[in-house]
Amino acid sequence: MKYYIGFDLGGTKVVAAALDEKFNILSRSKEKAGADKGTDAVYEVICSVIKKACEEANIILDDVVAIGGCAPGLVCPKTGLVFDTPNLGFKNFPLRQKLEDDFKVPVIIENDVNAGLYGELKFGAAKGFENVIAISPGTGVGGGVVINGKPYRGSMGGAGEFGHIIVQPDGPLCGCGQRGCLETLSSRTAISMQLASFSIRGRIPMIAEAANGNLKKIKSGLIAKAYNSGNKDTKTIVHHAAKYLGVGMAGLVNCFNPEAVILGGGLIEALPEPFTSISAKVMREQAMGNMGDIPVKEAQLGDDAVIIGAAQLAKEAEA
Amino acid sequence: MKYYIGFDLGGTKVVAAALDEKFNILSRSKEKAGADKGTDAVYEVICSVIKKACEEANIILDDVVAIGGCAPGLVCPKTGLVFDTPNLGFKNFPLRQKLEDDFKVPVIIENDVNAGLYGELKFGAAKGFENVIAISPGTGVGGGVVINGKPYRGSMGGAGEFGHIIVQPDGPLCGCGQRGCLETLSSRTAISMQLASFSIRGRIPMIAEAANGNLKKIKSGLIAKAYNSGNKDTKTIVHHAAKYLGVGMAGLVNCFNPEAVILGGGLIEALPEPFTSISAKVMREQAMGNMGDIPVKEAQLGDDAVIIGAAQLAKEAEA
Repeated sequence: MKYYIGFDLGGTKVVAAALDEKFNILSRSKEKAGADKGTDAVYEVICSVIKKACEEANIILDDVVAIGGCAPGLVCPKTGLVFDTPNLGFKNFPLRQKLEDDFKVPVIIENDVNAGLYGELKFGAAKGFENVIAISPGTGVGGGVVINGKPYRGSMGGAGEFGHIIVQPDGPLCGCGQRGCLETLSSRTAISMQLASFSIRGRIPMIAEAANGNLKKIKSGLIAKAYNSGNKDTKTIVHHAAKYLGVGMAGLVNCFNPEAVILGGGLIEALPEPFTSISAKVMREQAMGNMGDIPVKEAQLGDDAVIIGAAQLAKEAEA
Repeated sequence: MKYYIGFDLGGTKVVAAALDEKFNILSRSKEKAGADKGTDAVYEVICSVIKKACEEANIILDDVVAIGGCAPGLVCPKTGLVFDTPNLGFKNFPLRQKLEDDFKVPVIIENDVNAGLYGELKFGAAKGFENVIAISPGTGVGGGVVINGKPYRGSMGGAGEFGHIIVQPDGPLCGCGQRGCLETLSSRTAISMQLASFSIRGRIPMIAEAANGNLKKIKSGLIAKAYNSGNKDTKTIVHHAAKYLGVGMAGLVNCFNPEAVILGGGLIEALPEPFTSISAKVMREQAMGNMGDIPVKEAQLGDDAVIIGAAQLAKEAEA
C-alpha cells in the first residue's frame, strides 16, 4: 500500500493526516504550532504531527510516498519556500527542502486557501469546475484560484490575495496599511470588532456576557449564536459584512469570469446564511452582464479540505 | 508560402492585415464598420477588408491558411460566437462559423484586449512573461489576462473586464449600471467629460476652441496637447484618472500576482507620462507586500497588437 501525508500549518495549530491510496483519512494528529518559540520549534511540531499521524494510522514512514502541506501566506510552490507568514514568523523558510531531507520523500508546499480549494475541486463543492475562485473570511479574508483545473499562484505565489482588494476607499484601516480592503469589512475580525464595540456599550447582552469586551472571544460560533437569537444589531453588522463580501465577489467575477464561487472557513460554516444569499445577490447585481449568474457554494470539506488538497497535489507531483 | 490574415473589428472601423510566415505585415486594409446598417452589413465589411488585404499584399485567398480576428466584447474563443458587443449590436453572432464557411480556412475569434495582449506577449512589451495583465483605458477600460503563457478567458470569455471593478463605491454612474467602476474614473471618456464640463464654463480655452463642448471631439491627442501645454485643470483631471488607474492595478495585482502590467490604447500612447509613473506609484503603495514591485510597461505594437495577436492565435490553432 501507498500512503500520503497531508498537513495544515495554521497560525495557531498544526494538523496532519495520513491518507490511503483512495484518499480515505486514516488518522488525524494535532498540536499547537507554538509560534512564540521560534520557527525551528514550529518545524519540530510539523515533524512531530506527521510522525504521530503515521503512528495513529498504524503505518510506517517507509510506506509514505509523498507529503503535501500548506502554510498560511506567501509560498512558492515551485521551491516550497515559505516567503512570508506574518502569524508564524516564517521568512524565506525552506520548508520543502527540510522535510524532504528529513523524510526522504517528495514534498510539496502550497498556500492554504489554494490547497483547500483544490481539495474542494477534487472531492467537494467545486467538483467538476475548471475555473473557480474561493473566498474564505476568517481572521482576514483568504482567496484561492483554480484556472484550467489547476491552482493558479501567480508569479510569486501571491495570486488570490482577495482580502486586500479595496472595496471602500477611505474605509477602515487594514493591517496592510491601506484602507477599505475587503477584509476590513467582511472578515470575522471586522464583525467581531463591531460586535465588541456595541457590547461594551451595553448592547448585545449575549456577546457582552460571553466575551466581556474581549475581541478574541468573539468567534464564529458566538457570532452565529447572537445572529440566530434574532439580535437586531448583530443582524445589521453581519449583513453589512455579507454585502461587502458580495461587492468583492462582483469585482472578482469581472476579473476571473469563474464558473462558481466557493465560500469557506469557520465563519461561513457557522453562518452559511445569510452570507451565501446576501453576497450572491450583491454579486449578481454588480457583476458585468450575466457573469454573476453563477452558483455561490459553501465549501463541503471543512478543515479537511486543505489537508486533502495538499495531499492530492503531492500525489500528483509524485506520480 | 503560407499567409495569415489578422483582423480587428472595432466599434467604428474594421482593419485587416495580411501576414507572411515570419509575421511581417504585408498589407493593411481599413473600412468603417457601419454598425448603423446592421450586423449583416458589418459582416460584409469584414469580408471585404479581408479580401482587400489579400489583394494589396498580392496574395490569393488559397494561400491564406488561417484567419484570426477579434471583436470588442464578450467572445467565446471555443465557438467563435460573439455573444455581445454593445457598440456593434452583435448578439450571439456566429462570426467564426460564417467566416469558415465563406473562406474555407480555420478561423479563431478572440476578445480584442486578449488578442492585443497576446500580440504584445509574442512580439512586443510583454515578451518573456508567463503571467501578465493588460489594461487599456479608452472609451471604456479594457482588460486582458495571460496565464501560463496563454490568454485566459474565464468560463464565458468574460475574464478581464477590468473596467468594471469598483474602485470608488458611490462614484460616478457607469454604463453597466453600477457606480464607481474603474472606467468611470480612468477611461478617456471620464477625462473627456470633465474637460468638457470645464471648457464650457470658460476654463481650458484650448479644449473649448477645439471641441466647442462636444465630448466626441475630446480625443486622446487633444487631451495630450492640453496636458503638455501645462494647463493646470487638465493636469489635475489627468492625474486623478491615473491615480485611480493605479488603485485598480493594485487590486488586480493582489488577484493575479502578475510579472508585469502592460498599459495600452490610444490614451496611453498619447500620454505615456504621467499615466505610467503615477499609476505605478499608487499600485506599488497599495498592493500587498512586494507584489506591486513589478514593471508597468507601455504596449509597443499600437493598433497592430490585436491584429498580430489574433493572427498568431490562428496560426497556433491551425498548426
